Amino acid sequence: MIKKPLSQYTVQERTALLQETKEAYAAFQAKHLQLNMARGKPAPEQLDLSMPMLNALTAEMSMIAENGVDCRNYEALSGIPEIKALFGDLMGAPASKLFVGGNSSLELMFACVQIAFTKGIAGCPAWHTCDEVKFLCPVPGYDRHFGVTEYFGVKMISVPMLEFGPDMDIVQNYVESDPMVKGIWCVPVYSNPGGVVYSDETVRRFAALKPAAKDFRIFWDNAYFLHHLIDTPKQPLTIGAACRESGNLDLYYEFASTSKVTFAGAGVSALHTSELNLAEISKALGIQTIGFDKINQLRHVVFFKNADGVRSHMELHRQILKPKFDAVQEILEQELGALELATWSKPEGGYFVSFNAPKGCAKRIVSLCKEAGVTLTGAGATFPYGIDPDDSNIRLAPSYPEVDELKLSMKLFCICVKLAALEATA
Amino acid sequence: MIKKPLSQYTVQERTALLQETKEAYAAFQAKHLQLNMARGKPAPEQLDLSMPMLNALTAEMSMIAENGVDCRNYEALSGIPEIKALFGDLMGAPASKLFVGGNSSLELMFACVQIAFTKGIAGCPAWHTCDEVKFLCPVPGYDRHFGVTEYFGVKMISVPMLEFGPDMDIVQNYVESDPMVKGIWCVPVYSNPGGVVYSDETVRRFAALKPAAKDFRIFWDNAYFLHHLIDTPKQPLTIGAACRESGNLDLYYEFASTSKVTFAGAGVSALHTSELNLAEISKALGIQTIGFDKINQLRHVVFFKNADGVRSHMELHRQILKPKFDAVQEILEQELGALELATWSKPEGGYFVSFNAPKGCAKRIVSLCKEAGVTLTGAGATFPYGIDPDDSNIRLAPSYPEVDELKLSMKLFCICVKLAALEATA
Repeated sequence: MIKKPLSQYTVQERTALLQETKEAYAAFQAKHLQLNMARGKPAPEQLDLSMPMLNALTAEMSMIAENGVDCRNYEALSGIPEIKALFGDLMGAPASKLFVGGNSSLELMFACVQIAFTKGIAGCPAWHTCDEVKFLCPVPGYDRHFGVTEYFGVKMISVPMLEFGPDMDIVQNYVESDPMVKGIWCVPVYSNPGGVVYSDETVRRFAALKPAAKDFRIFWDNAYFLHHLIDTPKQPLTIGAACRESGNLDLYYEFASTSKVTFAGAGVSALHTSELNLAEISKALGIQTIGFDKINQLRHVVFFKNADGVRSHMELHRQILKPKFDAVQEILEQELGALELATWSKPEGGYFVSFNAPKGCAKRIVSLCKEAGVTLTGAGATFPYGIDPDDSNIRLAPSYPEVDELKLSMKLFCICVKLAALEATA
Repeated sequence: MIKKPLSQYTVQERTALLQETKEAYAAFQAKHLQLNMARGKPAPEQLDLSMPMLNALTAEMSMIAENGVDCRNYEALSGIPEIKALFGDLMGAPASKLFVGGNSSLELMFACVQIAFTKGIAGCPAWHTCDEVKFLCPVPGYDRHFGVTEYFGVKMISVPMLEFGPDMDIVQNYVESDPMVKGIWCVPVYSNPGGVVYSDETVRRFAALKPAAKDFRIFWDNAYFLHHLIDTPKQPLTIGAACRESGNLDLYYEFASTSKVTFAGAGVSALHTSELNLAEISKALGIQTIGFDKINQLRHVVFFKNADGVRSHMELHRQILKPKFDAVQEILEQELGALELATWSKPEGGYFVSFNAPKGCAKRIVSLCKEAGVTLTGAGATFPYGIDPDDSNIRLAPSYPEVDELKLSMKLFCICVKLAALEATA
C-alpha cells in the first residue's frame, strides 16, 4: 500500500486502491462473520473476575448493617452506611451526601429528570407545565442520555466537545442567559465516546456557572471514573469539591455505578449531590419504591472490603481491556494512518474509541460493516435525536469481542472506511 | 368485665369502665414500650427462611440462561426465560406475557402510571396534557398505591369495598361513563387491608368492563396471592383468564413479586399483561434502564426450582404468621367482642387486619397507642389523600412483632379503643 494521504493519490492510484479494497471487502463477506461491537459491554472474562462475589454472602452471615438495618427487609431507601462509605471513598464525596440505589445509574438519572418533569424541583414549576425545556448535550455523547431527555420532550442542543471538555463559552452563555436551559449531560472522565477527561479548569467553570434557571442541574455521569487504561491516571478535580469552592452546592447530580466493575445489570448505582437535592429526590423516589436491593449492596461491600479492593479489581479489568484498545489503535494507524482521511481518539480509559470518518460517510461505513457481518453502534447515535449533522462520527466499542475477533472487525472496519471514502470522493 | 354492648352500659358501669381503662392505660405507659406494627414487614424469622438462597449461586456455576443470555451482562430487559416460567406457573399466565423486573413491583406500577402520564398509552394523549385524570380507589386500600396516583396529580375517587370486592355497580358506572377515569387500584386476593378475596363474579365483571377511556387500565396488584393463612385456600379466577374470556386483552396490568416470599427489598417483581401492553411498557422501560438484575432472577430460580418449591416455602411463612393473626383475633374478641363498638376483618391470608373503630375515633386511638409506645399505621392511611371521612379505619399489621410483643400491643390497642370510644360518647 502506498503511504501517503488519499488527497495526494493519482487517479491510477485511487483506482488501484478501490479495486484492492473491493476485493478485500468481498473476501470478508465470504467469511460470513457475525461479530458485534455495538455496545460497551464487558467481555465474559471481565465478568468472570467478579464471580467470587457470588460466594461473598452466605446463609450463615449476619445481614444487619452497621446502623441496625436488616438488609433483608424494607427500609433504608437511600442505602446502607457501608455502601455509602465505599462509594464516598471512591468518589471523593461525604457518605452523608450519597444515595445508593439499585442496579442502574441510568435509572437514577431518569428519576432526576422525571421528578423535575412531573413535580418540579427547587420550587420551580414542573417541566411538563413549561412551554419548552432545554438540555445541553456535548457531542459526540451517549445515546442513552439523549434517550432520557428525548423521552420527556426536552429540546436538546448540541455543544461541541473540545480537548478538555465541552466548549465552556457556549455552555456558559446558554446556561446563564436562557432560563429554559435546565440541564447538561456530562461524562467528565473518559467521555462516551470521545474519551475526553475534563480539565480542572473545565470543572471549575462548571462549578462557577450562574444559571438563569434555579432548577438548572449538571448531570455529571461519572460512569468511567475507575476505568483507566494507563498506569498513572489523572486525578481530576471532583465536581463536588469544585462546587464547594464556588458555593454552588445544589448545582450538580453526580452518578456512578459498579455496572462495569462487577456485573453489568447486577451492580450498584449511586447518586452524590447536596443535602437539599438528596432530600427532594429521596422523597420522590420513596413514592416509586420502598427501597433498593440492600443485600446486593452488602454483597459488594463484603466482596471489595474497601476502596482499595475496588481499585485492585479495576487493575484486572485493565489487563483485559488494554490489549483490545491497543489492537484498535494499531490497526487504525496501520490501515488508515497514512491516508489522512479520518481521525480517532486515543483514550486513556473508558469503553470507547470515537472515530471521525470523512463527512457524509459514517452511515455508509456502518452499513458496509453490517453487510459483512460486523455490527457497530448506529451512525448518528452519538448525537441528539440520532442525527449527526456531518454524518461522520462512529463509536467503536472494543470491550466485548475477543482480541482476534476484534482485530478482524477492525480490519473490516478500515476497509469499509476506505471504500466509503473512495465512493464519496469518486 | 361486664359482657354486654357498650350501648347498654349504665352510667355507673361506664364510669367504672373508664376508670379501669384509664388505669390499664397508665400501667402500659409505665412499661415504656417501643413496639412498631405500622407496616406489613416480614419478621426476621420469615427472612431466615430464605437465607439458603444466598448460597444458591456460586462462583462455579454457569450464569448463562437457557436462551443463551449471560445473566451477568446487559441485555434481556424483560427478564430471563427461567424466571418468566416460574412466575407464569404461579400466576397462571403464559411466560410470553410476562415482564420480570427488579426488586420492586411498586416500581413497575409507578412505571405504568408514569408512562401514561408522560407519553400516553394506547394512542391516547399523555395524561399530563389532560385537564383531569381520575382513578378509582377501593377503600380501605393501600397507601402506597394512593401515593403513586397522588404524585402524578391524578384525582382519586373512593369506591367502597364490599364482601367480595369493590362495589362493581359503582365501578362500572364510573368506568363506562367517564372517559377521564383511567384506572383502578385492586388487590384482588387478601386485599390490603381488608383481606377481601374478589369473587369470580367480581373478576368477571372487571373483565367485562367497557371503559369510556381507551387507556383505562385495571392495576391488579396480586401482592398476596401466595400468602395464605388457611389450609385450603380459594383458587380465584385470574384476571388474565377472565379477560381472555371477555376478549378484553389489554384491560389489565397484573403485578406480583417475591418481596414477601424471599427478601423484602431483594426479591423479584413481575408484570403480566397483553402483548400490546408489554411492548408499550418495555419500550418505555428501556429508556429508564438497560435491564434489571438477572443474577437475582437466576438466584430465585435455582433456590426454588419450580412453583411447588415456592408453595412449600409459603407454607413455612404460614406457620410463622398464623399464630400472630390468631393472637390478634383472640385479643380483639376477648377485649372488644362483647362491647360491640367496633368490627374487624378475619383474613384468610395476606398481611393485615382491617379494624373499624367507632366513627371519629381512629386518629385518637392511633395517637393514644403512640403515646404509650406502640406505633400503628397512621389513621387515614387506608384512604386517598390520607383522609378517612369517618375517621374509623385502622390497619393492623401483625407480621413483624414477636407473638408476645404483639399480644402486648394488641392489649394496649384494645384499651385505647375503649378509651377513645368512652371519650367520644361521654
